[in-house]
Amino acid sequence: MKIAIFRKANFNAAHRLYNPDWTHDKNLEVFGVCTSPNFHGHNYDLVVKVVGEIDPETGMVINLKDLSRMIKDYVEDRFDHKNLNLDVEDFRTLNPTAENICFVIWNILREQLDEKYELTIRLYETPRNFVEYPA
Amino acid sequence: MKIAIFRKANFNAAHRLYNPDWTHDKNLEVFGVCTSPNFHGHNYDLVVKVVGEIDPETGMVINLKDLSRMIKDYVEDRFDHKNLNLDVEDFRTLNPTAENICFVIWNILREQLDEKYELTIRLYETPRNFVEYPA
Amino acid sequence: MKIAIFRKANFNAAHRLYNPDWTHDKNLEVFGVCTSPNFHGHNYDLVVKVVGEIDPETGMVINLKDLSRMIKDYVEDRFDHKNLNLDVEDFRTLNPTAENICFVIWNILREQLDEKYELTIRLYETPRNFVEYPA
Amino acid sequence: MKIAIFRKANFNAAHRLYNPDWTHDKNLEVFGVCTSPNFHGHNYDLVVKVVGEIDPETGMVINLKDLSRMIKDYVEDRFDHKNLNLDVEDFRTLNPTAENICFVIWNILREQLDEKYELTIRLYETPRNFVEYPA
Amino acid sequence: MKIAIFRKANFNAAHRLYNPDWTHDKNLEVFGVCTSPNFHGHNYDLVVKVVGEIDPETGMVINLKDLSRMIKDYVEDRFDHKNLNLDVEDFRTLNPTAENICFVIWNILREQLDEKYELTIRLYETPRNFVEYPA
Amino acid sequence: MKIAIFRKANFNAAHRLYNPDWTHDKNLEVFGVCTSPNFHGHNYDLVVKVVGEIDPETGMVINLKDLSRMIKDYVEDRFDHKNLNLDVEDFRTLNPTAENICFVIWNILREQLDEKYELTIRLYETPRNFVEYPA
Repeated sequence: MKIAIFRKANFNAAHRLYNPDWTHDKNLEVFGVCTSPNFHGHNYDLVVKVVGEIDPETGMVINLKDLSRMIKDYVEDRFDHKNLNLDVEDFRTLNPTAENICFVIWNILREQLDEKYELTIRLYETPRNFVEYPA
Repeated sequence: MKIAIFRKANFNAAHRLYNPDWTHDKNLEVFGVCTSPNFHGHNYDLVVKVVGEIDPETGMVINLKDLSRMIKDYVEDRFDHKNLNLDVEDFRTLNPTAENICFVIWNILREQLDEKYELTIRLYETPRNFVEYPA
Repeated sequence: MKIAIFRKANFNAAHRLYNPDWTHDKNLEVFGVCTSPNFHGHNYDLVVKVVGEIDPETGMVINLKDLSRMIKDYVEDRFDHKNLNLDVEDFRTLNPTAENICFVIWNILREQLDEKYELTIRLYETPRNFVEYPA
Repeated sequence: MKIAIFRKANFNAAHRLYNPDWTHDKNLEVFGVCTSPNFHGHNYDLVVKVVGEIDPETGMVINLKDLSRMIKDYVEDRFDHKNLNLDVEDFRTLNPTAENICFVIWNILREQLDEKYELTIRLYETPRNFVEYPA
Repeated sequence: MKIAIFRKANFNAAHRLYNPDWTHDKNLEVFGVCTSPNFHGHNYDLVVKVVGEIDPETGMVINLKDLSRMIKDYVEDRFDHKNLNLDVEDFRTLNPTAENICFVIWNILREQLDEKYELTIRLYETPRNFVEYPA
Repeated sequence: MKIAIFRKANFNAAHRLYNPDWTHDKNLEVFGVCTSPNFHGHNYDLVVKVVGEIDPETGMVINLKDLSRMIKDYVEDRFDHKNLNLDVEDFRTLNPTAENICFVIWNILREQLDEKYELTIRLYETPRNFVEYPA
């Protein structure tokens, strides 16, 4: 009797898409304005989905206070008001596409979350572009 | 060739989270302000997902007029402008967490819906906290 | 050169509409299900609008950190996860309609806000019903 | 290591629901006001979901510029500001219910999209009524 | 001590923009795809704003039940699931632009609403294009 | 008989808040994380409001095709996927707070727009923080 619980969070960050093995022209051809050298930015919206059994004592899958705190401590505080390329260790050698950011967040939270839960991360780069891992 | 159809509905209700087997302090520790004794409330948004085959005569999985009527008669009329803890039979002995409300609604509609359809319920307690059954 | 700055906030509360000078039938006739005796509730969304001059040193009308803190301390902490009729002094003798809640919040914040600013409060009881003071 | 990428698009179109094998009364009974003879219309919102592996060179599942272009060329240009029943070949003999429009769009894009990707289409007829194929 | 109350409503309709005094080419030049001959359509969202004093007996500016009923009877029933150009008297000789629809709705409701209230109509043709009368 | 027409647009940009006349500590005290040295960013949403008379020939206040083009050419192309502090002339010596960005956009469009129209700009930095000029 598995049920999913979802919690929304958000962070505002700067980034640029860039592959250091490519010429500027190749980067521009593939990434368009997203490779603009001085960065641009987004209001990222995050939806964390946790699947598990309802605990009959609490009526909850996981205590939202704990989940919110975990998202704040391990994701928001690390990414919010940061330059993903320059300030965040995880993107020193990894291109901060929505796909890669989503995957990095999944790995960060997977490590914190009790293994009895399944975890899915949805990340909105804009209201029109978003990704989800695992698919 | 299965397709899903979704219908949104909503109800406004009061509730509190509370486990009668626990002390007040234990309730406060687990549920925080959600256990506030005189109740608080939410605009609950409900998304009913029905999966089935397209009927070639109508081009529909299920007639939305019938589905909307079912949601109104069996969910909205039962929960809207009610105190879930005091006014709704289902929560006399069941803690009205989002998880439990979602599960109760699933059971109510499952009984009404032709068994050829699969049913999933998503319930938003706030735009940032929501649940889905089955996961 | 006046500019407006807006800050959204929210609180979840229970309430009922009720005039103690009226019979139950009269209350039911005027307020419908909103007078339901055991309360119902809403996710109230609040938009605080402050109008003033841009301070050339900061580029701001008012520091959002200060405004957010004021809204949290004087509105959210007072109304969130409360029963407006039973727990909030302001509604002991005042019917907690959206209009009256909006007017009460305006008075609370007006007292805190430097008089050089103009103040307008918009309050959403649901996404479809909302009020604004002053008009 | 599959990840999903989503892209939102939209088109504004007129339609009516109608089964030519039925009497007017039967159409009215099943489709209600949706069979109104002179058409009505909607702002259709479309969410295209593509599942695949992240390309390590780009950090992307699919280049959004290519996906957006495909949606524009094959869906938006074909459906936007059109009368689905009269102007769009696909609905000459197919009732333009949300279910059928969704299925038609899936077929159109499935043909364009590299077969290494999985494809899902969600179509909103209104914010309260939407469908998804495959379920 | 004036306060504003807002009520959202909606209707789904077909229309086309067209000036009968112009050639097809002139219509196309001015209205673009919006003059497409077989019509297209929209989910129109309507926000009715009524300004007045709070009645101390009810705590309300106007009873929302009465306002909702008025909007349903005089606007939604007249425009919903209609072809504005063909089915609605008001647009027999008036081009159904968002501006004109908004002005027509204002006139309809102005006639129904007690003259002690001020009335403003906001009409969304899409989430990105909307109008308001009076300005 | 003035009516308002609104058009939404958006741009994604990086920025930081910073007063060069202040110490780092003073900047941190006033702007908090918004002064983070390597920039952060936002999905800025823009609402352009134009007030005028309805042209009886077109039924429009202003042709939306012209207004959209003006916003694209003079605002979106200038600000989208840019670093406001480094790439945009207007903010070389002006702190890119929401207030100042809004005022700069108003000036840019005021110069392009026929003087018979009134112009108001609303700028969302996030869904919870926004500004409007003139107030």
